[in-house]
Amino acid sequence: MERVQVVTIGNEVLNGLVVNTNAAYLCRQLVELGLGVSAIHTIPDDLPSLKKGLQRALEESNLVICTGGLGPTCDDNTKDVAADLMGSALHFNEQLAQELRDRFGAGLASLQNQSTVPDKAICLANPHGTAPGFLFETDRVTLILLPGVPIELHLMFEQSVKPYLEGRLQHKKKKKTYYTLLPNTDENDVDPLLREVERRFPDLEIGIYARAGMITTAFSFFPEQEVDAKAVVQEISDRFSDRAIPSKNGRIEEDVMQLFIENRWTLCLAESCTGGAIAARLTALGGSSAYFLGSVVSYANTLKEKLLHVRPETLQVHGAVSEETALEMAIGAVRLSTSDFGLAVTGIAGPSGGSADRPVGTVWIAAANKAGRARAIRYTVRGDRARIIDVSVNKALCQLWHFCRGGPH
Amino acid sequence: MERVQVVTIGNEVLNGLVVNTNAAYLCRQLVELGLGVSAIHTIPDDLPSLKKGLQRALEESNLVICTGGLGPTCDDNTKDVAADLMGSALHFNEQLAQELRDRFGAGLASLQNQSTVPDKAICLANPHGTAPGFLFETDRVTLILLPGVPIELHLMFEQSVKPYLEGRLQHKKKKKTYYTLLPNTDENDVDPLLREVERRFPDLEIGIYARAGMITTAFSFFPEQEVDAKAVVQEISDRFSDRAIPSKNGRIEEDVMQLFIENRWTLCLAESCTGGAIAARLTALGGSSAYFLGSVVSYANTLKEKLLHVRPETLQVHGAVSEETALEMAIGAVRLSTSDFGLAVTGIAGPSGGSADRPVGTVWIAAANKAGRARAIRYTVRGDRARIIDVSVNKALCQLWHFCRGGPH
Repeated sequence: MERVQVVTIGNEVLNGLVVNTNAAYLCRQLVELGLGVSAIHTIPDDLPSLKKGLQRALEESNLVICTGGLGPTCDDNTKDVAADLMGSALHFNEQLAQELRDRFGAGLASLQNQSTVPDKAICLANPHGTAPGFLFETDRVTLILLPGVPIELHLMFEQSVKPYLEGRLQHKKKKKTYYTLLPNTDENDVDPLLREVERRFPDLEIGIYARAGMITTAFSFFPEQEVDAKAVVQEISDRFSDRAIPSKNGRIEEDVMQLFIENRWTLCLAESCTGGAIAARLTALGGSSAYFLGSVVSYANTLKEKLLHVRPETLQVHGAVSEETALEMAIGAVRLSTSDFGLAVTGIAGPSGGSADRPVGTVWIAAANKAGRARAIRYTVRGDRARIIDVSVNKALCQLWHFCRGGPH
Repeated sequence: MERVQVVTIGNEVLNGLVVNTNAAYLCRQLVELGLGVSAIHTIPDDLPSLKKGLQRALEESNLVICTGGLGPTCDDNTKDVAADLMGSALHFNEQLAQELRDRFGAGLASLQNQSTVPDKAICLANPHGTAPGFLFETDRVTLILLPGVPIELHLMFEQSVKPYLEGRLQHKKKKKTYYTLLPNTDENDVDPLLREVERRFPDLEIGIYARAGMITTAFSFFPEQEVDAKAVVQEISDRFSDRAIPSKNGRIEEDVMQLFIENRWTLCLAESCTGGAIAARLTALGGSSAYFLGSVVSYANTLKEKLLHVRPETLQVHGAVSEETALEMAIGAVRLSTSDFGLAVTGIAGPSGGSADRPVGTVWIAAANKAGRARAIRYTVRGDRARIIDVSVNKALCQLWHFCRGGPH
């Protein structure tokens, strides 16, 4: 049994300047390899914190993946601390130095530092930067050090760490997970069902995540439990048949992409309060240009009129946040792009702009198809601006997914 | 001296399903209050892990803020474990139960559970959900439990935790931070200068963060060091005068918003490879509608022609990813919206679509003003799709910031 911990080093995470996407990346990769992560620790880059944090992770696990603090700057101490903990001396490595000279020139200020490496570690090549990674392996524990710069981390994980772990894991069985998305659902409505499932199938790993207006259920299982997992997913789908979306990996944007590409449909968006966030979520996926034509982010009403052909009377009589405007935006998106489907969102993300009958969090979402069928739904989203946008994106994509099942005609 | 740790509970972070935005939120809030966070731990929600993780955080700090695992579902154990660690019994609280009945009806399935609270804790009201938060205080340590649902977390932090911490900290001095953004800069170019600064001003806290095509330097100081910090920031600005951007809090989107609002300028975007990500970043900020008119996310070339009036010949002769197309997109964005400035990005985010002379990562960014002045710059971004988009957003906003200093005419 592998006990895996991730240690991320960096004050920029601790002071809230950046979100810890490195940990999320590593966890996702490790889970795909069938390795569960038992803890993530984010620690500062000073020597005592580093030493204590790494030492503890090494004591508690047999695989520690650590990112950050490998660069050439003054706050990069990870290599020294790890070498110390693993009982390894450091020596200048002429071959590595020559490679760095060839790639970056003899004047590289950090040459001496970056070419000095622990004797007991395997160096992991860093095709993008100057800092190599390191892999220490003892009978009891493996420690892998990777840089904190995401591009370097991703490439080195792909090229060096993944093959190493796959070799190590080749005889182990992988867990698989079925996800179901339940928009517009309260956690309390799902919980009793899950408790019952837990009693009936004690070996299934059950997860329920409430995020941004959507419940996600996850059932993880070994191959021999697949029948049980399928039955449970079917039960959830039956119980919430008006809203359940079977999901490949819990990300609605991937499910939408799959649905559109399988059917060779195209999509155009008209976004107001989501401000481009739906388009950004969809286009974050490689291959999205196969179905995604574009989005008109019409923050100003003049752009709603000019580009989407929302009628000035509609805006005057019903307002920008209304069923009528949402429908005209969705239909406008279809017409201007001759797409199969259009999706429009208009709402009040706040903090200002609310009124008594249209408070902050009022959001109208409309889907339309090229035959002119269109439907708008009103949502009331609670929370701050970030949440209202986030929830609107999820609800819009879920609404679109269901609407599209009716076809483009 | 406060020693603060953040503990986030939740398998959805450990399996990489979500990025740990709760930790980032808490750290940002705590830093704004003048409290540095010395570690973040993300642990699973099972009883042994919870107990061990919380116990250790309590031993190592005098303030522990913990999120997650307070809800009504089967994997919510935080309250019980915390009560056990703090030596507190749990009792049914009729007043709390009555409040929940009033708000959610007597049929609330989790009523009994949610109304059973530790004797030794102060309950923190949760205006958005059923799960109250808890504050345990002993002579040695304070433990605060908050829900993991972001909307509930944010509101409860604002309403209960922040006032509590402000009261506790009112006689302490707060640190302030100056940030400088350096796009298109190598970490190695900044490091020697920072090492020198470190020698001259040993009391300044120095940070250097390399993220998504941009270096951020941060100098944190107590009020009496302000003169030193200002001198250092000035040195950095002088040394990198062609690119340095003084930043309020390290977020370029806020600096752009401030620049536009102060000058009463307006902005319209034309986005291709960034797919709405620039618009989403700008509109994530409340008040952005004061200057941001919209974005045309023109993934398909037909939309570049139809909405931005990019000439078909330009696309045919020079291609969609070219200086000419970028310039026409930026100028098109200004014209269609009659904005003061336009910003356009066109590039190849990959993984497919690259060619020998225009490999994946080729990005053209153009800024234009309403007088017709326009400038395009070509960047070559290394990395995967996510990084290419992320770097393009940063580079575009930095380029815009510098371009705008020339004025709209």
